Amino acid sequence: MLASMPRWDPHAEDRLREAALALFLEHGYENVTVTQITERAGLTRRSFSRYFADKRDVLFAGSDELPDVLARAVRHADGAAPPFEALLAGLVDVAGAFEGQAPLTAQRQAVVEASPELQERGRTKFAAVTDAVADALRDRGAPVSEAALLAQVGVAVFRTALDRWTDDPDAGELSARVRETAAELAAGMGAVDFTAPPSPSHAPPRP
Amino acid sequence: MLASMPRWDPHAEDRLREAALALFLEHGYENVTVTQITERAGLTRRSFSRYFADKRDVLFAGSDELPDVLARAVRHADGAAPPFEALLAGLVDVAGAFEGQAPLTAQRQAVVEASPELQERGRTKFAAVTDAVADALRDRGAPVSEAALLAQVGVAVFRTALDRWTDDPDAGELSARVRETAAELAAGMGAVDFTAPPSPSHAPPRP
Repeated sequence: MLASMPRWDPHAEDRLREAALALFLEHGYENVTVTQITERAGLTRRSFSRYFADKRDVLFAGSDELPDVLARAVRHADGAAPPFEALLAGLVDVAGAFEGQAPLTAQRQAVVEASPELQERGRTKFAAVTDAVADALRDRGAPVSEAALLAQVGVAVFRTALDRWTDDPDAGELSARVRETAAELAAGMGAVDFTAPPSPSHAPPRP
Repeated sequence: MLASMPRWDPHAEDRLREAALALFLEHGYENVTVTQITERAGLTRRSFSRYFADKRDVLFAGSDELPDVLARAVRHADGAAPPFEALLAGLVDVAGAFEGQAPLTAQRQAVVEASPELQERGRTKFAAVTDAVADALRDRGAPVSEAALLAQVGVAVFRTALDRWTDDPDAGELSARVRETAAELAAGMGAVDFTAPPSPSHAPPRP
C-alpha cells in the first residue's frame, strides 16, 4: 500500500502534526494512538519515528527548546537596555519564530485546554521558561527577586499575546501583539497611585 | 501518658503545625508520618484529626480558601477603581491576613521547594488563584484577555512580595511589600518605549 510513496517526503512532519492535531481535537488527546496518526497522514510509523519520540512529542516538539531559546534572546539583547526592555526584546525576538503558525498554535492550545494532563505539563513548561528567563535577567545584573518577578510578568505577557493572536491572527503578527500587550499592561499599572492606600478599610494606619 | 493533658488545648493547632514543619524540614515531607507529628507535638492523633485531614493539609490548610478569599477582595474593592487598582486593593487586603506569620510562611515555602510533588501542587494552587482573580476582574467589567493578564501579574507580584517578606520580615509587613513590589514593577515597565522596536535586528519593518 505504501510501496509507491516516495521515501522522503518534505512535508511529512507537517502532515503528521496536522493529522495528530485533527485527531486529538476529534477524539481527545488520550484516546488517539500513533497508528491512527500515521494512517490519517498516509505515512508509516517509521516516518513518524523520524520526527517524533511519541504522540506527546507531536504536540510539544520545539517547545522543549523554548526556555533556552528565550533565555538566549534575553541575554543577547542590547547590553545597555534595562531589564524589562531586554526581556521585551527577547520575547519579541522569539515571537518572530511563530510567524505564519497561528492556526496550528490555536489547535495545539485547544488540545491542551481539553486535557488536565496536558494542562499540567503546560504549567510545568511555563515554569521552566520562567526560570530560564529569570536566570538570563540575573546574568544581566538584575537582582534575584526582580529577575523572578519580571520573568513571570514576561511569560504572562507572552501567553496573553499568544491567545490574542490565535483568536484573531489577522490583527497583526505575534511580535507586534507582544509589544502591544506589554504597553497595555504598563499603561494600566502606570495609572495607579501606589503611595496611597487603595481604600481606607484595606490599609489601617501603621504605628 | 496523655491522661493528664487537658482535653482542649487552645494552641494544639499551632503546635501541630510547628511540629510538622520542623519534621518536614528535618526529614523531607515524604518521609514524615502523622504519628511522628503528633508525638513531636505531644498530642494525640485525635487532636490531629480535629484540625487536619492529613499531613498535606498541615501544609496547605487555609490556602485552599485563597482563590475565593482573594476573588472576593477584588470584587469588593472600590467600584470606581480601574482593574489593576482593584486587584492591588484585593492583594493588599489578603496580605493583611498573613501578618505575624512570616516565620511559619518561610518554613512552609522551604518545605515546598524541597519537594517536586509539592512544587507541582503549588503551581496548581497558583493557577487556581489566577483563574479566580481573572473571574473577579471580569465581573468588574475587564475584558477576558486583560483580566487574565492582570491576574497573572497580580499573582506574580504577590509571590514576589511574599518571598521578600519571608527573606526579611523586619523590613515591613506583607501588605506594604505588595504595594512596593507593584510600584517597582510599574516603574520598571513605565521606563520602556513600547512604540519603538527594542533593537533593529529584532523587529524588521512591517509593510
